[in-house]
Amino acid sequence: MMQPNVVIIGGGFGGLYAARALERVAVRVTLVDRRNHHVFQPLLYQVATAALSPGDIASPIRWILRRQPNVEVLLADAERIDAGRRAVVLADGEIGYDYLIIASGATHAYFGRDEWRRFAPGLKTLEDALEIRRRVLLAFERAERETDPRRRQALLTFVVIGGGPTGVELAGALAEISRQSLARDFRHFDPGSARIVLVEAGAALLAAFPPALAEAARRQLMSLGVDVRTGAAVTGISEGRVEIGGESIEAATILWAAGVAASPLGRTLGAPTDRVGRVLIDPDLSVPGHRELFVIGDLASLNGTDGRPLPGVAQVAIQMGRHAARNIERDLSGKARTPFRYRDYGNMATIGRASAVADFGWLRLKGWFAWLAWLFVHIMNLIGFRNRLVVFVQWAWAYFSYQRAVRLITGSPERDKPTS
Amino acid sequence: MMQPNVVIIGGGFGGLYAARALERVAVRVTLVDRRNHHVFQPLLYQVATAALSPGDIASPIRWILRRQPNVEVLLADAERIDAGRRAVVLADGEIGYDYLIIASGATHAYFGRDEWRRFAPGLKTLEDALEIRRRVLLAFERAERETDPRRRQALLTFVVIGGGPTGVELAGALAEISRQSLARDFRHFDPGSARIVLVEAGAALLAAFPPALAEAARRQLMSLGVDVRTGAAVTGISEGRVEIGGESIEAATILWAAGVAASPLGRTLGAPTDRVGRVLIDPDLSVPGHRELFVIGDLASLNGTDGRPLPGVAQVAIQMGRHAARNIERDLSGKARTPFRYRDYGNMATIGRASAVADFGWLRLKGWFAWLAWLFVHIMNLIGFRNRLVVFVQWAWAYFSYQRAVRLITGSPERDKPTS
Repeated sequence: MMQPNVVIIGGGFGGLYAARALERVAVRVTLVDRRNHHVFQPLLYQVATAALSPGDIASPIRWILRRQPNVEVLLADAERIDAGRRAVVLADGEIGYDYLIIASGATHAYFGRDEWRRFAPGLKTLEDALEIRRRVLLAFERAERETDPRRRQALLTFVVIGGGPTGVELAGALAEISRQSLARDFRHFDPGSARIVLVEAGAALLAAFPPALAEAARRQLMSLGVDVRTGAAVTGISEGRVEIGGESIEAATILWAAGVAASPLGRTLGAPTDRVGRVLIDPDLSVPGHRELFVIGDLASLNGTDGRPLPGVAQVAIQMGRHAARNIERDLSGKARTPFRYRDYGNMATIGRASAVADFGWLRLKGWFAWLAWLFVHIMNLIGFRNRLVVFVQWAWAYFSYQRAVRLITGSPERDKPTS
Repeated sequence: MMQPNVVIIGGGFGGLYAARALERVAVRVTLVDRRNHHVFQPLLYQVATAALSPGDIASPIRWILRRQPNVEVLLADAERIDAGRRAVVLADGEIGYDYLIIASGATHAYFGRDEWRRFAPGLKTLEDALEIRRRVLLAFERAERETDPRRRQALLTFVVIGGGPTGVELAGALAEISRQSLARDFRHFDPGSARIVLVEAGAALLAAFPPALAEAARRQLMSLGVDVRTGAAVTGISEGRVEIGGESIEAATILWAAGVAASPLGRTLGAPTDRVGRVLIDPDLSVPGHRELFVIGDLASLNGTDGRPLPGVAQVAIQMGRHAARNIERDLSGKARTPFRYRDYGNMATIGRASAVADFGWLRLKGWFAWLAWLFVHIMNLIGFRNRLVVFVQWAWAYFSYQRAVRLITGSPERDKPTS
């Protein structure tokens, strides 16, 4: 008899760990992604801020799974799900399934203000990271050639919108770039005069953290010279300008780390979704009425045992991927499925050099010890020995040199021209 | 009195070493480049073949020169030289000079067949390298989805045009990728069945090398399974097809490593140029009739002491850069200029893993020893301790793992879609 065919859409944390967990299960697995690589998202901001290269935090999906003979990897774009016919419709074909695990993740959302996207790029893919790197570095280059003091100050103003971990990490890294890495590089201005504004609509940064740690992060950012604005809603974004309440800030570089929307694939299911498009799933991670169809990771909407929605973090996606695989295995061996239970190992955010906050529940750290814990956890979780080694070497070098090595402005040379 | 203003166009080997050699000279130096980074060109093919990241072989020009207070770096596009008014016309401004060193290098030439460019990209910039990497990796991805055997074979055929060092290195690296790095990654074909054709119009590969070494290189390539065609002129290139004499080869990936043309900036001088647009210069490296105007590197046409034209290699550019700086210094101290004499330290080309040829004049090496010499010379010549360290670590890892780490297909996802 033919083995059941499990199709997984998405090679992020959820899809990848689901595929791995099916290694010893008697199924054929097809993992579909429109990119050839898995990205270690927690370090994407380091690519955006010129500390690491794309290749250091990404690996080809088929290389990661090369030793797993029951897995086939397909570079293809899944456009919609035909749940009735049990088929995934690709941009250039179709693939049937017995089980489907959708792990296509999330994208940015601009709270219905899609026109903000051009002015304030978000950070989800390697291309996003390179675009942010390009904008940040180009702003300093243009400042070197700008003679009007007011326009120069606008070029040296960076606004990061969103006070979650990504926003905090971006703001901290921008402060380090301007205060340390670029210190000797320019002749016509002091890069240390750059202004970094971190804007958060909520009452505090890092809402998922205990208040004492969130407050520690705020203080660490302020000591790096970041202008932290909490309880400040962004009301407008245009070319080079952000409106915060009544205030208008001229800033050549505006980065978006605020809203998230689920991948549009979720809506093609016809199943109920929540406000941001995430699919409401049963505790066994399947879609109500479709036991063969699992939705996991950032695309899934499920409450934890505390009744609060599970956060869109890597750990939730990884655990869901493994759990969906386990429930398929239980089906095939005639056992009853089990409900998903998220085990929260903690939360971390780094602010800068030797500065971070970490909440392990039983242990709360800030500053140097939190930073060491952050380094260790992130290096150990990178995929592949080579990436661990190369990231470790580069972090060690950066620590001692105060430098950021990957300060390349790439893209078409036309786009690189300063338009001062 | 105001110090003389030396403008250098181009942050490649020639321009960079000229700027450095002016460190202790009482001049103000402005280095203009339309890119913010210097690229270590000899290793560009390793980026194109997924062995290294762009950041590993490139460094920001202003970072390299940060400790040299008499240098200012300008990100700008030099469009033409107004030698009469002693001004460089930028895309967005103008800059006057007392001395000008033009080191804007070379680009690809298609022997008057510019329509070939789209089908057969060349390798000069980081963007070129990433485009070649994308095409090579995408060909294997498409082969995995192709069911027609003939079309699959075309996807697995790679034609490299030009048997100089770049062509030899690309062909060797493609053979390694298909025979070793990808060995376990695909389910529907054997990557080892890929066909790599290296085409050279001349009678032998590596024309600049002694015949015995060129023959050794040919044998090493053939043992890697490369189909080496010498004395074979390309007569046509179209989408997925190369015509070589009477034969027509279907190949999804065609790479150009043959012709070189000087940067168009040379022609804006109004000075005599050679067949490929290089500026004919005097032995002191200045343009006849313009003692204040030096042209160096790939843009310069000068014969060596043996009466043969100096080759377009890094060593020539570096030595010319230093010499131009020295002649400016001699002018300022009232001494007579000296003629340039190229000191040839030798030639090297790597073919693959533990396989290379090296000609130091007094010593000729092939195979393992040549490869070790090649590794040593290239690591020591990289700019910056960090790049040396990171490249060394990656090469060591690649040597023991037989892998290529940076196998990322990046660019817009629309372009990534397989169009099978």
